[in-house]
Amino acid sequence: MKPTIKDIARHVGVSVTTISLVLNNKPNTISTATKNEIFKVAKELNYSPNHVAKSLVTKTTQMIGLIVPDIGNNFFADLAKNIENECQKVGYSLILANAQNSLFETVRHVEQFISRGVDGLILAFYTDEKQNDKEKLVEQLNQYNLPIVTVDSWIKGLERPGVSVHHSKGGYMATKHLLDLGHTKIGCITGMKGNYSSDRRVRGYTDALKEAGIEVDPHLIVEGDYQFKSGYEHTLALVARGVDSLFVCNDLMAYGAYSALKELKLKVPDDISIVGFDDLMFSKMLSVPLTTIYQDIHELGEKATQLMMDFLKGGKTSQTFIRTEPSLVIRDSTKQIK
Amino acid sequence: MKPTIKDIARHVGVSVTTISLVLNNKPNTISTATKNEIFKVAKELNYSPNHVAKSLVTKTTQMIGLIVPDIGNNFFADLAKNIENECQKVGYSLILANAQNSLFETVRHVEQFISRGVDGLILAFYTDEKQNDKEKLVEQLNQYNLPIVTVDSWIKGLERPGVSVHHSKGGYMATKHLLDLGHTKIGCITGMKGNYSSDRRVRGYTDALKEAGIEVDPHLIVEGDYQFKSGYEHTLALVARGVDSLFVCNDLMAYGAYSALKELKLKVPDDISIVGFDDLMFSKMLSVPLTTIYQDIHELGEKATQLMMDFLKGGKTSQTFIRTEPSLVIRDSTKQIK
Repeated sequence: MKPTIKDIARHVGVSVTTISLVLNNKPNTISTATKNEIFKVAKELNYSPNHVAKSLVTKTTQMIGLIVPDIGNNFFADLAKNIENECQKVGYSLILANAQNSLFETVRHVEQFISRGVDGLILAFYTDEKQNDKEKLVEQLNQYNLPIVTVDSWIKGLERPGVSVHHSKGGYMATKHLLDLGHTKIGCITGMKGNYSSDRRVRGYTDALKEAGIEVDPHLIVEGDYQFKSGYEHTLALVARGVDSLFVCNDLMAYGAYSALKELKLKVPDDISIVGFDDLMFSKMLSVPLTTIYQDIHELGEKATQLMMDFLKGGKTSQTFIRTEPSLVIRDSTKQIK
Repeated sequence: MKPTIKDIARHVGVSVTTISLVLNNKPNTISTATKNEIFKVAKELNYSPNHVAKSLVTKTTQMIGLIVPDIGNNFFADLAKNIENECQKVGYSLILANAQNSLFETVRHVEQFISRGVDGLILAFYTDEKQNDKEKLVEQLNQYNLPIVTVDSWIKGLERPGVSVHHSKGGYMATKHLLDLGHTKIGCITGMKGNYSSDRRVRGYTDALKEAGIEVDPHLIVEGDYQFKSGYEHTLALVARGVDSLFVCNDLMAYGAYSALKELKLKVPDDISIVGFDDLMFSKMLSVPLTTIYQDIHELGEKATQLMMDFLKGGKTSQTFIRTEPSLVIRDSTKQIK
């Protein structure tokens, strides 16, 4: 016969509640000695907590899964920290997975988290247009009853709440700032084509140019991948095309741009002005502190967790989508053109 | 009666193997449509995969848990990425938890991961001397049969394999470099007292001073916490005590030191030389590129994963402890004193 927590309680000589608190990782003040004893007995009896079955009954494991596209990008590491803090405030644990900028990996982690019995999933999707499985993924996710909240991303057809900075507004602000300083040949290094945040940041860029009556030159827009190296490489290419300034779609690539310009012996901002996006903590510490678009990661984490809690409490599945406000942080990497 | 994967196979009209591959997240080429159908039927039948029971039989979930003290520190984010890459190469998934620089949180995550059925745990411990539960934790961990490998950390009594850079050697190299440049009043901003890496880096500092015949002045050693802010605050204090240079025990605090010196209108390296530890990618991009101690995070990730695989294959529990070699990277933040 399958052992139950009653059996363990009897063996250890403590209450069923104590056993339940310990085996379910609920906050408790139970001594380590007792905990050890409980784990030992549970193992001896071959007790299986059977989380999935349990979660079908109690509907709760107090565990939220978060999947991010690239934990090596400080933006996502900080986002994870903030979401974790918020989850902890409301009594939830966070487990994390890194999707390595792959939709395939995202799906794999989703399935894994579901099979491990998380109460809900917070997803920061990686998407690009080369990955054609988006519709399939959406179809699949929509079949799960599981609460899902998206953060910094969105996929058409996935009817779940989400939160993201107003990317296109940020892209517009960055470009408008360069235009106001007299720049007209503004290069743009984008993220992956088809990526939610990148496409919108680029739209903000083209909107600002059009508004200023400047024709969008496709040769000045190059597709990067949000990594340092692509910022470096594309800057070399764009300088050769005669840009007077750059809107680089994230700070990490802007650091790569600095590195390329240093190699070319071009000065920021005297020779080229640069605006980034994200305002990572390092951006103010660069040789030339970076002008960039700030997004409030704390607010994103707070809102994402709040949406999840609403979802868990009320079973709310409406497509609430919150856009947080970006802001322009002017530092030393941009200057008025003669 | 409890449904089995045979029941699901019958309902979906595919083989038991297909069901098993999908429900256990094994690598497969099964179409998303079929996968969706399998998940749907599994849910309809109230099928519970019962991972823990399964893992007791098959002894494998192909999942490794990694707990890091601070995912917001690039060192640990990069370490996580590297360990994940290595795990993936050998067919394992990685799930991550952030212990928020708390031993209590570390223990909580350990218990959680165990109850979720990971095959093994890679632990980067946070420890400091204020947390008295170290012995209890060790006792508890030693009771689990679970393969545990430590990385960048070590706790007395925990008889598990581990890998870490040779911290004291790194601390020695950093300090020796400053001594060789003629500095004698070398301040030291440490990590948390009682923390494995910090204590050893500081020992390297005192060893180098003693070797040079310089008395260790306890007023020049101040306890930080590996965060930016403590680097900033302690630099203000140490400058007031007349240091001519600083060995800052990690790069993140060194960035804080830069910020303090900028505020004090002191120039690096003209007024004060600085050496960090870790060689984060940002260190070469600072206003004054930082001289620091490089540790090979790729190697750490590779070795940690290798130790885990050895453990899983052979049940090897010997206390293999690998020390990787640090190296001094001389940039512009240090110079010869007059």
